[in-house]
Amino acid sequence: MSEVIQKLQWRYATKKFDPSQVVPQDKVERILEAARLAPTSSGLQPFEIIVIRNAALREQIKPIAMNQGQITDCSHLLVFAAWDTYTAERINTFFDLTNSERGSTNEGWENYRKFLLGAYPGRDSEVNFQHAAKQAYIGLGAALIAAAFEGVDSTPMEGFDPKALDELLGLKARGLRSAAIMPLGYRQADQDWLASLKKVRRARADFITEIN
Amino acid sequence: MSEVIQKLQWRYATKKFDPSQVVPQDKVERILEAARLAPTSSGLQPFEIIVIRNAALREQIKPIAMNQGQITDCSHLLVFAAWDTYTAERINTFFDLTNSERGSTNEGWENYRKFLLGAYPGRDSEVNFQHAAKQAYIGLGAALIAAAFEGVDSTPMEGFDPKALDELLGLKARGLRSAAIMPLGYRQADQDWLASLKKVRRARADFITEIN
Repeated sequence: MSEVIQKLQWRYATKKFDPSQVVPQDKVERILEAARLAPTSSGLQPFEIIVIRNAALREQIKPIAMNQGQITDCSHLLVFAAWDTYTAERINTFFDLTNSERGSTNEGWENYRKFLLGAYPGRDSEVNFQHAAKQAYIGLGAALIAAAFEGVDSTPMEGFDPKALDELLGLKARGLRSAAIMPLGYRQADQDWLASLKKVRRARADFITEIN
Repeated sequence: MSEVIQKLQWRYATKKFDPSQVVPQDKVERILEAARLAPTSSGLQPFEIIVIRNAALREQIKPIAMNQGQITDCSHLLVFAAWDTYTAERINTFFDLTNSERGSTNEGWENYRKFLLGAYPGRDSEVNFQHAAKQAYIGLGAALIAAAFEGVDSTPMEGFDPKALDELLGLKARGLRSAAIMPLGYRQADQDWLASLKKVRRARADFITEIN
């Protein structure tokens, strides 16, 4: 069994966090760094992460997240907020950053910039947001695996009112829309109904098809 | 630096695979297992993976994937195909499997089944597919990290015609739509323009907001 599989077996969607335990900052940083390094379509990284420690704010989020206890019991609440659309400015910022970091550019790369500038900003913003949100989910996947490697519990959650959360966090003005949230913390296993239950996944045969 | 970060630094969107190298089956299995174990919304796992070794089929896929060489040069081509919608049957299959695997059920769990049965199947199928595709991207994130741990290169790709691929693979009849593809193999670094270039990501300050 590989270490990644071992960590994925260890983790579960923690329902009860121990409110007395705080995740050390160096662990949080490595979890965020995994999300930052995760690949995204064309490398655009069309999302941001808001990290909420503030207890009062988490109390405000709880009712718009179906009153789920993880919101306030966790140590850090991550909000994965995707770009509400692709704009020419955002695309150019990425290509300019890349050229600046690499100290060079080339025709193929600049043609690719033109291709994206022609393809994305004119598209329906809902299509663009859905595309951006999918990229955020790659980052979420990376973050939850990184968390497991740190021995930190995490729970990817969609059970919240995105519009209300966007409003509360002022995301609209930043051109962002919340896509998923993920509390980090430590499981309080004896109070968590899911902690002792078997992880259930479809059998390989019902999940994988091979064409050899 | 954690091992996950190290692996994420090592990997890159491989543009040129060495066509002479085949990924050993045990490595492929561990990569697929990571995707299978990845969490998904409500645990529904609303996607499947088609693993294509067949060279003739990959030759057919290449022209509908912008003639990208990775399709035919790679060792294994993974197709992440998401459910085209959520149906009562699919939801019930998951809840029944869970009850059977755990050897029990309870009222809260059965109420949750009813909630999903009331919420998902009646929704627009495009909304459902987008939701399912996002879950597939968590699996894709898990698979690419698992690949890096195996020393296997991978390239998440969206540059293909999903409808044409669905047609070619007969996915519609299976209630699936291709969401992303990912070749696995080994980089041929000396022929890969991207292999030696710096990985570029937005600075932490432009990616993370903290609310303490």
